[in-house]
Amino acid sequence: MLNIRPATDRDRDAIWKIFHEVIAAGDTYGFEPEMSREEALAYWFRADTYTYVAECEGEIAGTYILRANQQGPGSHVSNAAFMVVPDARGQGIGRAMGEHCLGEAQRLGFRAMQFNFVVSTNASAVRLWKQLGFKVVGTLPGAFRHPERGYVDVYVMFRSLTR
Amino acid sequence: MLNIRPATDRDRDAIWKIFHEVIAAGDTYGFEPEMSREEALAYWFRADTYTYVAECEGEIAGTYILRANQQGPGSHVSNAAFMVVPDARGQGIGRAMGEHCLGEAQRLGFRAMQFNFVVSTNASAVRLWKQLGFKVVGTLPGAFRHPERGYVDVYVMFRSLTR
Repeated sequence: MLNIRPATDRDRDAIWKIFHEVIAAGDTYGFEPEMSREEALAYWFRADTYTYVAECEGEIAGTYILRANQQGPGSHVSNAAFMVVPDARGQGIGRAMGEHCLGEAQRLGFRAMQFNFVVSTNASAVRLWKQLGFKVVGTLPGAFRHPERGYVDVYVMFRSLTR
Repeated sequence: MLNIRPATDRDRDAIWKIFHEVIAAGDTYGFEPEMSREEALAYWFRADTYTYVAECEGEIAGTYILRANQQGPGSHVSNAAFMVVPDARGQGIGRAMGEHCLGEAQRLGFRAMQFNFVVSTNASAVRLWKQLGFKVVGTLPGAFRHPERGYVDVYVMFRSLTR
């Protein structure tokens, strides 16, 4: 049973553990692999950000954030980012968080959701977002330096939340 | 004669004046029109940001920033933003800053430049960036709420800096 809920300060250790593992791998996010705990948590818990965790049998299995992608005349488009514990992948936790996130974004009144930086080689993420209704609306040529594959393309993905 | 140089603390008043006029118009940037001076200058002079001004006969006629668009495996792609004093438009100041910025980005070792949020109705900007070698690599449907035209598309523009 997966319980997705707003994160609290008591989740900070678990979130940092996931965050660190994900960015240290260096194959999915545009963050410094050596980013400090302090910086990472400041980013994940930024004042304008909704932060969630996915809990499974008392353990944090994933976390996501939801925020406006731009301010002012761009603030009706949301942005989100997701991280799943490496050992817990392939169990639908990313999908459950994605669906939860779309619901939260609608509840908060956002008209759309945009992912700015989906690495094209991250096939499971690209597939999942397409299944959840996102389209690739942009391709950034060679915008990601993959640890094994060198410079690879990055997708901008977008989904309307209105009918 | 236009002199483009790194900004100093003494340029803060002039930069805020431009910034405020540009965002209050609400037709080109994804910032809150009521953003405070403090927030605006913190953004424009962020620690990871190179900040420049274009000076014409002792007056600041424009300003731009240059920074990495992502960190870590995405840090080879730069990002920039430009503002010209409304009264000084149509005199080539944007173009001069754009050319200067491309040179600075190359000098700093960036491999490409990306604009994340070029409002499609900002025809002079879109035309200028195309003339300077940028291509529209993405279209964000309705991602900007224009004060007169309602929801309009936004372009992601990209230009390589390598041969």
